[in-house]
This record gives sequence, C-alpha cells and structure tokens, in this order.
Amino acid sequence: MSNSHFLQKLHAIRAFVFDVDGVFTNNQLLATESGELLRSFNAKDGFAVKVAIERGYQVCIITGGNASSVYKRLSLLGIQHVYSKVENKLEVLQKFLKESNLQAEQALFMGDDIPDYKAMQYCGIACCPNDAVPEIQKISAYIANNKGGKACVREVIEMVLKVQDKWFKF
Amino acid sequence: MSNSHFLQKLHAIRAFVFDVDGVFTNNQLLATESGELLRSFNAKDGFAVKVAIERGYQVCIITGGNASSVYKRLSLLGIQHVYSKVENKLEVLQKFLKESNLQAEQALFMGDDIPDYKAMQYCGIACCPNDAVPEIQKISAYIANNKGGKACVREVIEMVLKVQDKWFKF
Amino acid sequence: MSNSHFLQKLHAIRAFVFDVDGVFTNNQLLATESGELLRSFNAKDGFAVKVAIERGYQVCIITGGNASSVYKRLSLLGIQHVYSKVENKLEVLQKFLKESNLQAEQALFMGDDIPDYKAMQYCGIACCPNDAVPEIQKISAYIANNKGGKACVREVIEMVLKVQDKWFKF
Amino acid sequence: MSNSHFLQKLHAIRAFVFDVDGVFTNNQLLATESGELLRSFNAKDGFAVKVAIERGYQVCIITGGNASSVYKRLSLLGIQHVYSKVENKLEVLQKFLKESNLQAEQALFMGDDIPDYKAMQYCGIACCPNDAVPEIQKISAYIANNKGGKACVREVIEMVLKVQDKWFKF
Repeated sequence: MSNSHFLQKLHAIRAFVFDVDGVFTNNQLLATESGELLRSFNAKDGFAVKVAIERGYQVCIITGGNASSVYKRLSLLGIQHVYSKVENKLEVLQKFLKESNLQAEQALFMGDDIPDYKAMQYCGIACCPNDAVPEIQKISAYIANNKGGKACVREVIEMVLKVQDKWFKF
Repeated sequence: MSNSHFLQKLHAIRAFVFDVDGVFTNNQLLATESGELLRSFNAKDGFAVKVAIERGYQVCIITGGNASSVYKRLSLLGIQHVYSKVENKLEVLQKFLKESNLQAEQALFMGDDIPDYKAMQYCGIACCPNDAVPEIQKISAYIANNKGGKACVREVIEMVLKVQDKWFKF
Repeated sequence: MSNSHFLQKLHAIRAFVFDVDGVFTNNQLLATESGELLRSFNAKDGFAVKVAIERGYQVCIITGGNASSVYKRLSLLGIQHVYSKVENKLEVLQKFLKESNLQAEQALFMGDDIPDYKAMQYCGIACCPNDAVPEIQKISAYIANNKGGKACVREVIEMVLKVQDKWFKF
Repeated sequence: MSNSHFLQKLHAIRAFVFDVDGVFTNNQLLATESGELLRSFNAKDGFAVKVAIERGYQVCIITGGNASSVYKRLSLLGIQHVYSKVENKLEVLQKFLKESNLQAEQALFMGDDIPDYKAMQYCGIACCPNDAVPEIQKISAYIANNKGGKACVREVIEMVLKVQDKWFKF
C-alpha cells in the first residue's frame, strides 16, 4: 500500500475495534483463587481511549474471553460497546457496524492472534501489536512499534487522531 | 540428532506433558495474604492448548506445586490430566502414559528445572523454554525461542501440529 | 540549560511533586473482580521517599486516578500531600505550593503524560521517566535513566539530596 | 580478592542470609485494597532454598518490611529464621549468628540497598543481585549475573553448594 493511500484510509476512520488479550494486555492472565482471570491494563492506553471517546469516536471491544474485571475497567473508560465470550468475531463486528451505522472502511481493528483474523481482514485498517503472531502481522497494514499491553492501543489512536487533527497541540 | 530424525519424532507425538512453573509461567509466584501462590498464564499458550485438545491430543500437567487457582485455569482450558504436589514426576508420567494407552515415544515433555529431569529423558521428545536451567537445556532435543510464560507452550504445540498438518491454514 | 544553572536549580528544591501512573508505576493497572485498579510500587522508590521526608522535604502526589490501595501505600511512606481524581493538575499544584509556603522554583515535578504538561512547566524543575511520552520529554530539564516503576523516583530524589549534601555517605 | 581466597571463603559458608525486596523479588510491591503489599517470588529460588535446607544449611531472612504474605511463602519453603520490620539489620544478624552458634565467616549475606550495608560488611561473603544500588555493588565480593526476583538467590546457593559438592550431579 502506498503512503498516500494509507493516509487516506486513516482519514476515514470513525471507530476503533480492539481485542483484549495481547492488545490491551501483554497476554498475561493472573489466575485467582476464585477462578477469575485478572488482566493488567496500561494507563497510557486508557488515556487515549478516553480522549477518542470525548472527541466523538466509537470504541468497541470484541473478546473471546470473559471476566467481570475487564468489564469494570472498560466501562470506567467509557467504552460503549463490549462484546465478550465471542466465538465468531466477524459476525459480531458486522453487527456492531450495522448498529452504529458505520461502513467497514470507517473501522480500524487491532488484534494479535488467529481468532482476530477474519474480522481484521473485513475492516478498513488492520493493525497489530509488535508481538502479534506472524499470521496476523502478515495481514496488518500497520504493525505498531509497541507490544501488547505496552501502549499499542495508544499508538494507533494517536496516529488516527493526529492525521485527523484531533490530538493535542502544544 | 539429524533433522529428519527429529521430524520423524515430531510425527509420532500424540500427547503433550508440561510442568507449570517456568513453562506456563515465568516462574513468578504472587504470594497472597491468605498464603495462596498465584500464577500468571499466557493467553497465547491457552489458545494453543485448546486447539490441541479439540484436535484429539492428550494434554497432561505434572507439577510439584499445588494451587487451586492453577486447577481452575487449567480446567477452563479443558486439560484432561492434572497431577499436582508430585514428588516423583517420572512415576506419575508412567502412570499417565499407561492409563492413556500411550508409548513414551508418543509424548513430548516440556520442563525447565531439575525436578523435570528424569521424566524428560523418558519421553519421546524433551523440550524446554529458552530460560530453563543449563542441566535441562543439555538434555533437550528442542530449546524454544520463547521463555517460560512467554508462549513457549504455544511454540511446541504449533511445531507438532504444523508437522502433522493439524494447525490452521490461511 | 547550562550545567551550572541546572545545579543551581537543584540547590533550590524543597519539595517533590509526583504523578502516580507511569512514574511510581510502569503504567500497569491490575483490574480486580471488584473493579479496583491495583498498582505495583517499587521498594527502592519507597526507601528514597522515606529518606526525603525524614530530612525535611515536602512530598506531594497529584494524580488523575483514584484508588484506596494507592492511598494506603503512600500514607505508609509518610507522604503528607495526596491529591487524587484531579482534573486540573496546575490548579492543585498552585494550591499545594501556597499552603506549604513554597515558591514554584522550590518544587521539582516528575510526570510522564499529557495531563502533567502544564503543572510541569510551572515548577522549578520538570523531570520525567525514560519512557514518558515525547511531549513530556520535550519540556523536561531532566530525563531519568530509569523507566516509570523502575526507580525513577529514587533517581531524582537521590540527585537532589546528593547536590544538597543530604544523601548517605559511606 | 584472589580467586583461591574467594573459593576458601565459599567453603566456609554454613548459612545464607537474605533481604527480601530486591533480592527474592524485583522490588515490586503490589498494593492491595486492604493495604497489604504483595510480592512475587521466583520458583527457581524456592527450589534452591528447599535444597539448601534439606542439606543442612541455615537460611535466614532479615527484612525492613512486614507482610503476612511473605511469612507464609517463606515458611512454606521451610525457612527457619525470619526477622521482619527490622530497623537495624546488623544487630539482628549478630543475634541470629549467636543463637545459631555460627561465626560471621560462615554466613553469606545477599542484599540490594543501603539498609543492608552494615550487615553485609559483617558477613564472610557479601553478595548482591545484578541490579543492586551502586553503594552495595561496591562492597560485594560477588555480584550475581541475575537481577533481584530473577533467580539471584538460586545463583548464590548453587555457587556455594557446588563448591562444597552438595548440589545435584548428573
């Protein structure tokens, strides 16, 4: 893809769709005595998500996992769309786009592993963290400089908002 | 070992046997106020374990440790055989193989420390994470590119399933 | 800034003002089942904070976040001024300086992200961890050798106390 | 110190004395909602401590911190001497040596920060993790290859037991 074509695609983005494990997190799951799996989120990612939502973007989470702790963290950030225990991510993505009145070209998807494959291919821009599995890196238009859990979410939100002149200026 | 001989050995594998600390985890144990030791698992490893079980492989855990949190995580993944508080890993391995009607050549063992030594030597393929102790690296037919807790379990499962044409194709 | 001018500024410091996430921590937030976000602090930072307070310096925390666990850790260290859930950090900083009868030149501020920007510019010395966002690095008189959560707080406290001949001598 | 002199000193060791934060751990303290500080221990260190105790060595912990979770982990390993909330580590060390009928030359001390300074100088061998503060590295006869929490405890126990022909042989 040429640079100018990629820039054009960035201009079209109105929604961010993220997987959780390996994207918001470094894939680590802390298993508690009660059987819950706890994740560590990154404050830098959280800041960018809040800014994106304030400035009118849709943020959507599609995860195969399920955990009440994830819900609580994500709702604290004001994320409007959280789909968990998802078997077929493409199906859920299409449902989200339809309900939000968005075209596939208006959505950026960041995933890191095989269950994200088809949904990523469907979106306008496919992104992945630096440590995504090779199959996912191969189909990504943008491979972040940062790893999962190390502010890769922040990186793609900043990239889009800067191109669209919606990020901070000093 | 020649490459073709190792390939032949990979073709024979029907069961995966794993230690927990230093293999599924980076050896860290979070000590809680109630005296429990919590481990962090890797979502990439979990995905591979589920795929292996779905495709008919046996997955077995043999650990010296004991923790209800480990049980819950591993049963969530559908692992059929979990032996904990094990003093003699070789004995338990032999019991598992007998009950599962498997030969030693059909089992791959991944361990990282001295308590795994004898059981590893007994199996068809001995593997270890990149940061296993030197004694274990010495007797391993395959030293993973990844460290314990950093998807070394995924790495060996993918290696076997790809050779046997059971991994994903795109 | 010339070295001798920076040294002069170090001599004037009587108060340390810190952000929490990305400064005392590596930005990771462990989301619990009850919806709390837990942080990991560094024992080396804690030691330096206690020494600074014993030797008469003011230590102040200004954070956008809120967590009872943060309060408990920081009060254990004897920190006198903790402001949380702060929207406008500059306003709170000015309030702290006024109440403590300090001039802006007597305060060192260490932050790592955009919400710290204006408060950092207001203080005598602006510092940041090695992995602060570029906007913050740009306005910092001192970029620590250490990352957030990896003893960058210790590093700036030691720097000031050594210049003022208040650190340990052997 | 010449190599042969250091070897001689290793032969004399009958007791291991360790600080906790920065030695058994990487200095991280997870602050919980109830105000407890949780530490992550390393399974490789734990294995070495158990082996040392089985083979007749004394293991002693002297820490400035206090946490019931630390006690539980350390007692699980069979550690006989745990002193916490210690202000003056040298005093406590001398008490431990006297009660255990040991000479200073028979004790190895591993610490990482200024509160360990005097006690380390008193012992036969002073050791530190790779990431100890400079003041401590300066007075250490042996600086480990590993960092705190990354099996530096294992490293010094193995070093002593190998010299004394008490480690595993294959």
